[in-house]
Amino acid sequence: MSFDWSEFEHVTKVDPAKRHPESIDVLRHTDAVIVGGSDGVTEENSLAVFERLRAEFPDLPLVQEPYRSAHVSKRTVEVADAVFVPAVYNGDKTNFVEKHVGFFTELARKSEDVTGSGLPFVGSVLASKGRELVDGVVGEGYVVQNPDSKVAGLTNVEEHYTPEQVAGAALATESFYGFPIFYIEYSGRYVGPEDVSAAAPFLDETALLYGGGIRSRAQTDEILDAGADAVVVGDCFHEDTERFLETVPTT
Amino acid sequence: MSFDWSEFEHVTKVDPAKRHPESIDVLRHTDAVIVGGSDGVTEENSLAVFERLRAEFPDLPLVQEPYRSAHVSKRTVEVADAVFVPAVYNGDKTNFVEKHVGFFTELARKSEDVTGSGLPFVGSVLASKGRELVDGVVGEGYVVQNPDSKVAGLTNVEEHYTPEQVAGAALATESFYGFPIFYIEYSGRYVGPEDVSAAAPFLDETALLYGGGIRSRAQTDEILDAGADAVVVGDCFHEDTERFLETVPTT
Repeated sequence: MSFDWSEFEHVTKVDPAKRHPESIDVLRHTDAVIVGGSDGVTEENSLAVFERLRAEFPDLPLVQEPYRSAHVSKRTVEVADAVFVPAVYNGDKTNFVEKHVGFFTELARKSEDVTGSGLPFVGSVLASKGRELVDGVVGEGYVVQNPDSKVAGLTNVEEHYTPEQVAGAALATESFYGFPIFYIEYSGRYVGPEDVSAAAPFLDETALLYGGGIRSRAQTDEILDAGADAVVVGDCFHEDTERFLETVPTT
Repeated sequence: MSFDWSEFEHVTKVDPAKRHPESIDVLRHTDAVIVGGSDGVTEENSLAVFERLRAEFPDLPLVQEPYRSAHVSKRTVEVADAVFVPAVYNGDKTNFVEKHVGFFTELARKSEDVTGSGLPFVGSVLASKGRELVDGVVGEGYVVQNPDSKVAGLTNVEEHYTPEQVAGAALATESFYGFPIFYIEYSGRYVGPEDVSAAAPFLDETALLYGGGIRSRAQTDEILDAGADAVVVGDCFHEDTERFLETVPTT
């Protein structure tokens, strides 16, 4: 599946390690779901979420966003529409090039049993020089802007980017790395649209996502008006589905 | 200018800081020239090389490969056909994402006087969201394999990649980062085609370059036969143009 971001404005991030609402019916109002978290994620709890989501919403685009390759398996790849691999610009080296080269070394090395229980298409990937795999695994240029968040600890973020650096990272994403997504992550803290406004002018083909602390439609609108393609809402979904509904844009 | 690597088999790397032969007539036998080095490169000596090359070989593709953004200026960009920005996988963070985000932050920030004396198109780049610039500045996925070389010191390379890791870096280059070039650099030491053989099966759209210690046609042929698109010859050009001629394939 390729993602047409012009169709998406509201994405929900579902953390497999967190408590889920009894009814997930509110997800009929979101455009896509990213399954991932920063703590306690496993292949098994990821799969459980995918299977529940797929059962209730057969047509909803589902993405896996792993933070370790062990979260990815033949079964998760089969059930998810895509795998987004974060590339954290302001994290340490182990969360950027080292992780990526390691991940692709693993894929290149093994024709079966890759990253856990085996990616079924790796044999043909080897034969066709990586083409099949490419369609499913894409990079997300990531800026982690809340130093107190779990994800900042996980990726060893030491540097909060200025809006100018966010703009530079956006331009590098589109012009240099060619990742299809640029993601500004404030993890639970809403601080306004400044970074989104800084990044948006430099992104043409790249989708701009913002996540962090969105709890109202006014905040969603403010971020979309500043030039984001979509907001990503996470905590609300786990904590309060009524409030979650209020983050969905009216369009 | 876009580079059709199927046309190139022999590339010469000319170091602006090194002694040049009195006659550069031998360059009529090479397919393209990369201007760059690891020590003592400046905007001025780069420009001097470009101007001499352009005067004698108006149609020869010329590339600038800077190691600092200060080497790049309005004048170098005007005279060169492209700028290749190395992304050293096994260097430290300052030679990968930090450098790239810094470089593009600089480009994004300034509408004139970028990286020295001003890139003329940055105004329109800003207006058109980076599109114009993209055509000229491209990434090279780089593996530096000679720990004793100047470039290894410059990029803080601590890790010699195994052939499996070279294959992983190649796959990441094509599948994840999307850089148009993957460059295996042995800097003056010829060790055979093992890394090239490891990388080649994973590269389809990406050009595979090998540089390091090539001093004979037999070595050129061995590298090309192993799957490289082109060899890069440097030292020979500066040291002994007769020997340099012997590195040119017979095609």
